[in-house]
Amino acid sequence: MSVAVVVGAGPGLGAALCRRFAQGGLKVAAARRRKDELEDLAGQVGGRAYACDATRQSDVETLFEDVARDLGTPELVVFNAGAFRPGGLLDIDAATFEDCWRASCLGGFHVAQAAVRAMLPRGRGTLIFTGATASLRGGKNFANLAVPKFGLRALAQSTAREFAPQGIHVAHTVIDGQIQNETRGGRHSEGERGADALLKPEAIAEAYWQLHQQPRSAWTHEMDLRPWVETF
Amino acid sequence: MSVAVVVGAGPGLGAALCRRFAQGGLKVAAARRRKDELEDLAGQVGGRAYACDATRQSDVETLFEDVARDLGTPELVVFNAGAFRPGGLLDIDAATFEDCWRASCLGGFHVAQAAVRAMLPRGRGTLIFTGATASLRGGKNFANLAVPKFGLRALAQSTAREFAPQGIHVAHTVIDGQIQNETRGGRHSEGERGADALLKPEAIAEAYWQLHQQPRSAWTHEMDLRPWVETF
Amino acid sequence: MSVAVVVGAGPGLGAALCRRFAQGGLKVAAARRRKDELEDLAGQVGGRAYACDATRQSDVETLFEDVARDLGTPELVVFNAGAFRPGGLLDIDAATFEDCWRASCLGGFHVAQAAVRAMLPRGRGTLIFTGATASLRGGKNFANLAVPKFGLRALAQSTAREFAPQGIHVAHTVIDGQIQNETRGGRHSEGERGADALLKPEAIAEAYWQLHQQPRSAWTHEMDLRPWVETF
Amino acid sequence: MSVAVVVGAGPGLGAALCRRFAQGGLKVAAARRRKDELEDLAGQVGGRAYACDATRQSDVETLFEDVARDLGTPELVVFNAGAFRPGGLLDIDAATFEDCWRASCLGGFHVAQAAVRAMLPRGRGTLIFTGATASLRGGKNFANLAVPKFGLRALAQSTAREFAPQGIHVAHTVIDGQIQNETRGGRHSEGERGADALLKPEAIAEAYWQLHQQPRSAWTHEMDLRPWVETF
Repeated sequence: MSVAVVVGAGPGLGAALCRRFAQGGLKVAAARRRKDELEDLAGQVGGRAYACDATRQSDVETLFEDVARDLGTPELVVFNAGAFRPGGLLDIDAATFEDCWRASCLGGFHVAQAAVRAMLPRGRGTLIFTGATASLRGGKNFANLAVPKFGLRALAQSTAREFAPQGIHVAHTVIDGQIQNETRGGRHSEGERGADALLKPEAIAEAYWQLHQQPRSAWTHEMDLRPWVETF
Repeated sequence: MSVAVVVGAGPGLGAALCRRFAQGGLKVAAARRRKDELEDLAGQVGGRAYACDATRQSDVETLFEDVARDLGTPELVVFNAGAFRPGGLLDIDAATFEDCWRASCLGGFHVAQAAVRAMLPRGRGTLIFTGATASLRGGKNFANLAVPKFGLRALAQSTAREFAPQGIHVAHTVIDGQIQNETRGGRHSEGERGADALLKPEAIAEAYWQLHQQPRSAWTHEMDLRPWVETF
Repeated sequence: MSVAVVVGAGPGLGAALCRRFAQGGLKVAAARRRKDELEDLAGQVGGRAYACDATRQSDVETLFEDVARDLGTPELVVFNAGAFRPGGLLDIDAATFEDCWRASCLGGFHVAQAAVRAMLPRGRGTLIFTGATASLRGGKNFANLAVPKFGLRALAQSTAREFAPQGIHVAHTVIDGQIQNETRGGRHSEGERGADALLKPEAIAEAYWQLHQQPRSAWTHEMDLRPWVETF
Repeated sequence: MSVAVVVGAGPGLGAALCRRFAQGGLKVAAARRRKDELEDLAGQVGGRAYACDATRQSDVETLFEDVARDLGTPELVVFNAGAFRPGGLLDIDAATFEDCWRASCLGGFHVAQAAVRAMLPRGRGTLIFTGATASLRGGKNFANLAVPKFGLRALAQSTAREFAPQGIHVAHTVIDGQIQNETRGGRHSEGERGADALLKPEAIAEAYWQLHQQPRSAWTHEMDLRPWVETF
């Protein structure tokens, strides 16, 4: 039985990923900073909860060691963590700017290293990074999100170009819109725009699952996902 | 029973799309310039073959009228046609330059209009355009391919932005590599690089099918597909 | 004394280019469909007016022959022609779609061939294509502009990649905003936004001149130009 | 007399920028970590040398206070600092990954804040960020450069979109190739490819100067610069 690791297993997309991977027959390791918030989810999916602050390399290394021992070698790893506080350039304090980068990009680097190290001996595996609109566009008041998300996209590209020929599928998603049950700088609420105006976590999770299922003769490196009514 | 139309149902990807859509339960209309080359395929998938030169608006209009009468209103339409002859700028004659554009881009415009007109009254449907590496990069000796493929991508974007809010899912794929059983300016052969070094048509077709299955709360507009060993 | 050719020498940017190049000491050949509208401009800049419908290869070939005979070998050529009528996908008739492509993209191909043929024996020269916001984004109601402009950008890239190593500087500009004294699908007027809310043709022309002055150790292939108040 | 600040005034491009700005009549503040390496340059250009580690916010704030007192309010600021060590994903240690980001991206954030704060009261000024090939593409072995450079580009975009309408010109250059007299991960040497196969710092500096001279009716946000023989 195969193993999936979701780093950033928050209440919206992260939880949906865990459920979809479990439904696909994988043993799921759900990780986030506060383990207590994960216990219910882990129970639901028959998986295990792990505390992990991905900004700390030692936390990530411990996570992958624990998962290897508890569940086995991961064949699917998702980096879905991040932090964002909107604000004008002059309103962002330098410590917050750095914290956002550490949460949304440095954490991805730690996870990429650990995931590739685990997958390389077998010459297969899938590593997916969650991006956003701000991965492609540095908008006004979005420096705090765009700087790490652009960086994470660069990391995904460098990792894909190095390890695809060694059998590891590295993908990057561009989530363009607000995800149901997640808060991201307080954009439009569902109520204003109708039932499926927000991204449903289950629908995104299905796309991640399909990425993992792709045979290596036709791998997707990047895809966008947005609700039908989203302006782009 | 729903209906799919594949314009450009050639021996590689086009045929695989027809097979996948039929397997998914759709009645398939397979169209290309020479109908005789389609009869076998149409038989295999229990669909119908249509002669259509997509560079002629009247051909495309007739195709959609015939399909509507024979099979019903299409809910999935793929524009997969194109033509390409590589060559340096000074080696391309103007007539060929224009022919390539008509085959790879103008045909897409005719199909987009007909598809949207058919889908709009029901407020749903999927329209997919097949792009290529040359949709994103104008390489040396590739003007003949890149000019129409850039244009087709522009058309896909304009169509998506206009009709997504009316329920029509418009997607554009970036096929980055050579497709098995297709010839595209004679790049590397499979033999040199091993079994899945080329894009398998079935694997691409699966991605198109998944695009069609996406709920409108999480639509993909663009995704790339390439073999694991492809440099990018 | 060196020679510049401006194809698409209309009243806004085209005329400003002719003036700037003349001011820089070049003999200027100003070309557009209707020669009578050019006589004043040609007189102002001490250059010559030529009738040229760039969509016709023979017109372009004749233009370059005439310029070579009248003024000499061109070292700077600008393709600044184009046509655009905005409209929704279903409102565009196929003939107009094709006409827009012929005016904005096929004309560029004819000019590129003629310019490169003229410059190649000397191993130097500058060829600039005028692009637009729609060169990078296919917006709603802009298919008629975006399809040819995406294509023109592809052409510029293919031409640059083939001929830069042979000494020809090929550049593409992204004009993002309305140009003073030009009408482009009727966007905002200057009055609403103040004195320099529109692109001044002279300012754009200065950028083209600078592109031409760049030494080959540091060539720009693409640059954008927009007014300070333009949203992007 | 106006004031320019160059942060990252190293021996190649940085020094050329100082010389060009001085030649244009500006008082130049040249800043880098080790002030002693700047004294000669400052003497040549009649400017002043400042020690500044841009990764430290207090250093940057002190720099801008000192410049304001010594020379006056800056109207042109360039962030040209950076650090890079190439290497595969598994060879990069986390501390180096973070150091590279601090040097190439966080430093840019500190400088952006200080520059905008200085320029905003007068409603004018130019702020230029030096990017690279790796600003647009995450290549194999280049994660250490691409992650910060992508991030710096995001910062440039967010800053431009926020402050252009307030009169501040924010630009980002994509330096695509090796700069003469600079070492960047040891690519090809000049000798192999001839006299102007490398980017001449003076030619790049001229482009920066032209960006600063642009009137606000036609501002460039992004431009690339590469030698004629560079593959792209």
